[in-house]
Amino acid sequence: MSKITISIPQGTRDFDALTIQKRQYILHTIRHVYELYGYTPLETPSMENLDTLLGKYGDEGDKLIFKILNNGLHDAKNIDKTKAAFDQILQGKNDKTLTERALRYDLTIPFARYVAMHHTTLTMPYKRYQIQPVWRADRPQKGRYREFYQCDADVVGSNSIYNEAECISMYQQVFSTLGIPVTIKLNNRALLAALAALCGHASLLMPITIAIDKLDKIGIEKVKEELISKGIPLNAIPIIKKYINISMLDASNNEKLNALLTLLGSTVSHTITELRTLLSLIPTVPHAQVVIDTTLARGLNYYTGCILEVVANTVAMGSIGGGGRYNDLTGTFGVPNIPGMGISFGVDRIYDVLEELQLFPHNTVKGSTVLFLHNGIKEIAQAYTLLQQLRNQGIAGELYYEPAKVDKQYKYAEAKGIQYVVSITTLDLEAHSCTLKHLASRTVHQLSQAALLRFNF
Amino acid sequence: MSKITISIPQGTRDFDALTIQKRQYILHTIRHVYELYGYTPLETPSMENLDTLLGKYGDEGDKLIFKILNNGLHDAKNIDKTKAAFDQILQGKNDKTLTERALRYDLTIPFARYVAMHHTTLTMPYKRYQIQPVWRADRPQKGRYREFYQCDADVVGSNSIYNEAECISMYQQVFSTLGIPVTIKLNNRALLAALAALCGHASLLMPITIAIDKLDKIGIEKVKEELISKGIPLNAIPIIKKYINISMLDASNNEKLNALLTLLGSTVSHTITELRTLLSLIPTVPHAQVVIDTTLARGLNYYTGCILEVVANTVAMGSIGGGGRYNDLTGTFGVPNIPGMGISFGVDRIYDVLEELQLFPHNTVKGSTVLFLHNGIKEIAQAYTLLQQLRNQGIAGELYYEPAKVDKQYKYAEAKGIQYVVSITTLDLEAHSCTLKHLASRTVHQLSQAALLRFNF
Repeated sequence: MSKITISIPQGTRDFDALTIQKRQYILHTIRHVYELYGYTPLETPSMENLDTLLGKYGDEGDKLIFKILNNGLHDAKNIDKTKAAFDQILQGKNDKTLTERALRYDLTIPFARYVAMHHTTLTMPYKRYQIQPVWRADRPQKGRYREFYQCDADVVGSNSIYNEAECISMYQQVFSTLGIPVTIKLNNRALLAALAALCGHASLLMPITIAIDKLDKIGIEKVKEELISKGIPLNAIPIIKKYINISMLDASNNEKLNALLTLLGSTVSHTITELRTLLSLIPTVPHAQVVIDTTLARGLNYYTGCILEVVANTVAMGSIGGGGRYNDLTGTFGVPNIPGMGISFGVDRIYDVLEELQLFPHNTVKGSTVLFLHNGIKEIAQAYTLLQQLRNQGIAGELYYEPAKVDKQYKYAEAKGIQYVVSITTLDLEAHSCTLKHLASRTVHQLSQAALLRFNF
Repeated sequence: MSKITISIPQGTRDFDALTIQKRQYILHTIRHVYELYGYTPLETPSMENLDTLLGKYGDEGDKLIFKILNNGLHDAKNIDKTKAAFDQILQGKNDKTLTERALRYDLTIPFARYVAMHHTTLTMPYKRYQIQPVWRADRPQKGRYREFYQCDADVVGSNSIYNEAECISMYQQVFSTLGIPVTIKLNNRALLAALAALCGHASLLMPITIAIDKLDKIGIEKVKEELISKGIPLNAIPIIKKYINISMLDASNNEKLNALLTLLGSTVSHTITELRTLLSLIPTVPHAQVVIDTTLARGLNYYTGCILEVVANTVAMGSIGGGGRYNDLTGTFGVPNIPGMGISFGVDRIYDVLEELQLFPHNTVKGSTVLFLHNGIKEIAQAYTLLQQLRNQGIAGELYYEPAKVDKQYKYAEAKGIQYVVSITTLDLEAHSCTLKHLASRTVHQLSQAALLRFNF
């Protein structure tokens, strides 16, 4: 047979047992905390109507949405419609004859679509979490995939600052449980808006935000250049510089808030008071401190209040979590005035951090508890009876059914991380005995088969 | 704002918390049994290269594969390539410029692709389970969806009949745990092949199999008509009728095997012996009996040995599980001689059976344990402190943060299935007391806040 090259699509991954079990450890930790806080699960379809997704992620986002080809284009009876659709495409337009569905690009828009469809019957405030893959036609590169899990929690129908407090507490609890020391950066879009107003006009919010957002990557001098190139008045530059410097200070959150109030004036006094209230609700967790960071901007346009971002303290990995408050989740679907607050965990990056810090617990990966070794058909039969009895007691086990030397069976146990092997030899058949060996410690027990069934694995 | 119609694609579903928790109960049960038997998880990407999938599911299957439109077709620089691709499509051909990826149609072909890619490094026999959604462009109808979960286990690299025994035992254990009385039908493709040979030619296997497969739906007379129309020799019809009748007999498995040996002759003696061995390895489980059914055919071409199908005894639902042995999983990917055995559970149908028989355990659906009721800002603050202490003890709880009458908060607790409410009134503030009410029993406790933290929820 000729050699066939087999591969999977660029930017996608197969996950083996080891990786799945480690990822499950992360997801279980997050899910447990979400449920402690009263969030309940939601799952939406992998495909949404194209209309639902297009225009929600900006022009760049639209280009990265995976569209699904309609079926039946080849059918003779559809050929005229198909031709007409192609003409539309060649003119740069979409045509529903060709594609009317697309793969989920994030979890927020499907959530908004769900809330908009069901807002009259949902119990409000509605707290949901959602852990599902999303798909993006991004150029694949290290750490960036075309299919990856998102892990969101949102509460809608509530304006209370306690929601922000709970979101921050959830971050603290998850990262404390995982053992990752983090910093939780906190800002409020209202401060950025006040800065824009102070610089001359509210419309400067976006260029200022975008420029400041690049501070980490390009440094303050380049940010200044960009601000000027974007038409920010020259006399505004020192104000922005002062604003940025507030975060650079080695100061307490309280001192930073005082400095912000001085710089931005009484228009932000409500926001500052709210931030003080929020900080008073958050416990001091040494390895998950909350830090006011006025340069935190978060890319997504729909945030209107508090914004959050989590970074690992000892691994350079970028953001491993983020979120914020929005005042209008579903307006784009014709249902206005549903405010909310949401957070997300970057599961792939958290995985890499745990790997780098060697923080996955030893018992994360578990194979079978026991493998039966044997050297013949009669031994298999007796071993199988024992194995089934162990399984009935809830002990995971296996038997190597292929005719093979004991050595090969032993290697199978080692390769699969099996903890114990039980040998049934020809001599054991009549004596109803066996030999139990713990692979890690190499401890060996000679015992009756009846005793094996009572063994404390 | 104008009214906007929002919907999800035909044949797809949103899953709310209730449905997800019930489905999780099924999946946990299956996963637990798979792991007891030494199967480990695998996840493959949602999209595969189109080449990997096309031609594997027959012409009808090919038409039902969801293809993903390549990105960048609209770009001016791609316009000539796009035009050329459209021409290909209009001629009924696929062109990679338009689409080169497609959504997973089942779990077997991606598994085969994975084994073919990694067979040199996988520990054999390789036992994997896989629980992921698949997508089919089927016409949506009751109980048939375009996105649904499959739940497979396969072992490859082993010819032993013990694998068949384990697969049947897994079926028995899962359905016993779920409480669904089932019948596990067992047949072997070799018997159907022998029947075809006896009727004149091995090539009659497929038409005979297809006709017999319809027995349940169209009855024996119509099956006879179809056999004749397919060119089965007239003198073969009585043989096929005898063969079918063996399953109709109210006879033991042993008697059926004897009758098969008599009808089909010594060519099947090896298969009959193997079936007897298999039956001897399976325990008698009254509510999950194994029954030889010679009319069982299973649609999939790649089965070559034992085939299995599970039906519920008391609900007309069709097959809720199925599987079989194949002698060549990966030949189509250039890696021949990897035999195996696999089974699958029909999760959606099992869900419907459990619902119809009211077999979901009462504790399957769980919301928060406790909701704090309050009537003001000071009470919220005190309640929040208590709530955080309960959460630190692992008790899931919530606080209704919006300004609302206690009555509305109470309704929130009922709607979300919360078990307990705790009232903190103005009088409780200084006394550090509270009132705890169990909603189902309406039992009320007056207790100190310190006692609440020790309460055995």
